[in-house]
Amino acid sequence: MPNTLPLLEAEYPAAARLLSPLGRRAELPLGIPQQSAQAAGCERQATIGQITAGSGLPLTLPALASHFTELDPKSAFLYAPTAGIRALREAWKVRMNLPGTSLPVVTNGMSHGLSIVADLFSSPEHPIVLAQPYWDNYETIWHMRNGAEMLDFPFFGADRRFNLGGMSDRLDALRGPATLLLNFPNNPTGYAPTHAEAEAIVARIHAHPHPLAVLCDDAYAGLYFSEACYGKSLFGALAAGADRERLLVCKVDGATKELVFFGGRVGFLTFSAEGAVGEALVEKASAVLRGTISSVNAPAQAAVLAALRDPNLVAQQEEVFGVLRRRYTALSSALLAEGVDALPFNSGCFAMLQLRPDQDAQEVRMRLIREQSTGVIAVPSANALRVAFCSIDEVDIPDLVRRVAAVVNG
Amino acid sequence: MPNTLPLLEAEYPAAARLLSPLGRRAELPLGIPQQSAQAAGCERQATIGQITAGSGLPLTLPALASHFTELDPKSAFLYAPTAGIRALREAWKVRMNLPGTSLPVVTNGMSHGLSIVADLFSSPEHPIVLAQPYWDNYETIWHMRNGAEMLDFPFFGADRRFNLGGMSDRLDALRGPATLLLNFPNNPTGYAPTHAEAEAIVARIHAHPHPLAVLCDDAYAGLYFSEACYGKSLFGALAAGADRERLLVCKVDGATKELVFFGGRVGFLTFSAEGAVGEALVEKASAVLRGTISSVNAPAQAAVLAALRDPNLVAQQEEVFGVLRRRYTALSSALLAEGVDALPFNSGCFAMLQLRPDQDAQEVRMRLIREQSTGVIAVPSANALRVAFCSIDEVDIPDLVRRVAAVVNG
Repeated sequence: MPNTLPLLEAEYPAAARLLSPLGRRAELPLGIPQQSAQAAGCERQATIGQITAGSGLPLTLPALASHFTELDPKSAFLYAPTAGIRALREAWKVRMNLPGTSLPVVTNGMSHGLSIVADLFSSPEHPIVLAQPYWDNYETIWHMRNGAEMLDFPFFGADRRFNLGGMSDRLDALRGPATLLLNFPNNPTGYAPTHAEAEAIVARIHAHPHPLAVLCDDAYAGLYFSEACYGKSLFGALAAGADRERLLVCKVDGATKELVFFGGRVGFLTFSAEGAVGEALVEKASAVLRGTISSVNAPAQAAVLAALRDPNLVAQQEEVFGVLRRRYTALSSALLAEGVDALPFNSGCFAMLQLRPDQDAQEVRMRLIREQSTGVIAVPSANALRVAFCSIDEVDIPDLVRRVAAVVNG
Repeated sequence: MPNTLPLLEAEYPAAARLLSPLGRRAELPLGIPQQSAQAAGCERQATIGQITAGSGLPLTLPALASHFTELDPKSAFLYAPTAGIRALREAWKVRMNLPGTSLPVVTNGMSHGLSIVADLFSSPEHPIVLAQPYWDNYETIWHMRNGAEMLDFPFFGADRRFNLGGMSDRLDALRGPATLLLNFPNNPTGYAPTHAEAEAIVARIHAHPHPLAVLCDDAYAGLYFSEACYGKSLFGALAAGADRERLLVCKVDGATKELVFFGGRVGFLTFSAEGAVGEALVEKASAVLRGTISSVNAPAQAAVLAALRDPNLVAQQEEVFGVLRRRYTALSSALLAEGVDALPFNSGCFAMLQLRPDQDAQEVRMRLIREQSTGVIAVPSANALRVAFCSIDEVDIPDLVRRVAAVVNG
């Protein structure tokens, strides 16, 4: 593979300037996969280090293969290409339906997409701006692993709306390349921006004068429960107006929540560039992917592809969405009825309950376990509790909230 | 989680000294998984960010879930634990049957195990010693990704035996912590040490005076075709005599070849320490794993576990092994019959053909494609060709070798 850095420097200067030292040197070697590809049409093929029948079909063990059904054997049991099964990448791109973006790279779940973006663009010199509280794995990925500084701002302002001012202040203070992480619908708050908030966020980012990689962590894509929500990823609007001197946009999404396949680890990473420039970014991501896991598990990719082609998929997704929406409605009503102080939530899987200044989140969490046999997550940085309504049956939600209220309002 | 570094410093000084800067700071946060675990027995559970029925069973989409059969739904469709499904880790440990070693960590294929070992123990200050030629992804993992120096030595000596002297010279020159990579059966040579060679390698390593992490890349474990082979991993013998002041041994193996599940990406990483010290190393590996992919795909883990419990597995593995052994025998005979200069090979998936000094490996490879419609891999660093007999039917091997001989001996 040729070095793609000169192309990025010429055609997408922001991307080139955003690269970390690892990102700059990330390159696929001209190795065995390329030599195999050149010999693809040969009558005798002795290039491939996989145990196959001469026909190229896998030689599988029934004790194992019998657990996978109606999947193309070559796709499911042999190595997938580094960037993922091509037909799956194309199907996901069609589903996103956004012009001017790259073909997605298949990642091993969404964490892996985040980790690749962190490897490519973050370092001790390239910090990350993000709302607080945030998922603890962000700290493991960016700070522990890549040594990046975490420049956080409170998710909600004093008015309990998305804290655009806090985000803006952090961006104002930047003097060089950085990443901005946007996670909507948000974990842990369960909040997604309104139309007006979305427009303001996009406008602020488009006005940023320095190289900025915006990472849309769209883990909870599609789970919007209020008409007020903007109701889609900011990736499209951000990418559409991206000035290549200043802005790169990356989208991480996947089958984990959208196809309710938590164990499958099928994620996607897409960049705000098509054609050769998009391919150059895909190659950088593929080099990091090859250097961590070689390739993503193939049966799960094949199953997601089969599901995307299944005409019943959308109805099945809507059924699960309906279950979640009813849980959301039940939780909203019960919190109101019991007078529990909930922060705004309109999407995703969670709600966050605000504790009083005289309450300690870890202490309240432990009391809920002991006194009410009720498990929630403590979010000490916001002095709040996170309630996952995605895993509680609708019928049990009033009882859950009564138990929480007994301690929180006590 | 408590910081495990003091424990390693006290109980396994070599491991502590071998850690890279990332390895030193690798730690699992006291995060959501731990809070969930504390609430495990509660009547109301709102900790888990997965979409489930209240019973904890996954809410799956039939369009997707129908492709997986006879797997425990919780194991297959929900997140696996960070270090892997516990029963699978235990089953793999029983299968290894080695005392004094850790419970294996499940990795996303063997590349991921290599990459975790590289992250934990390699850096620009901690080089890696390895035989040349080597798999090109080693360079991506150690050099591109972690900036480690690659200190190589020729795999075969002038006598066409394993080059113990070359390995020894590289070790002699070390003054501080380093990794030694041993890949037997080897890619690309298809060679594994004899009993005498294995003993000499182990003795040389046990005599090394500085902290050394030996990584046994056992990707091709079990594929031995000659009585002369030592016939098992060096991990057991190395770990059994490991002085904790000087030697850490890591084993990477997996279902990829052993269960003929190339697409599955189920690998294992095991350390030469049991009990709390083994757990401390497992925790370091888990922290890196969480910061790259969060967890390994669950359906493949569940399927490998089911296969390991299937009484028919061993017979099915032996059937595939028989296919490979017949291909090995056919290739050996055909090379002899055609007078092709093959380097010694006795195991694994490959054979390496030595070219004459006046031949160029890439040129010969391209001629084989053009003139003989035959694909092999060029190994320029050894002026050799790699032939993968694992993917050629026995009946086609004589014809393959005739085509190769027509160019190579021409």
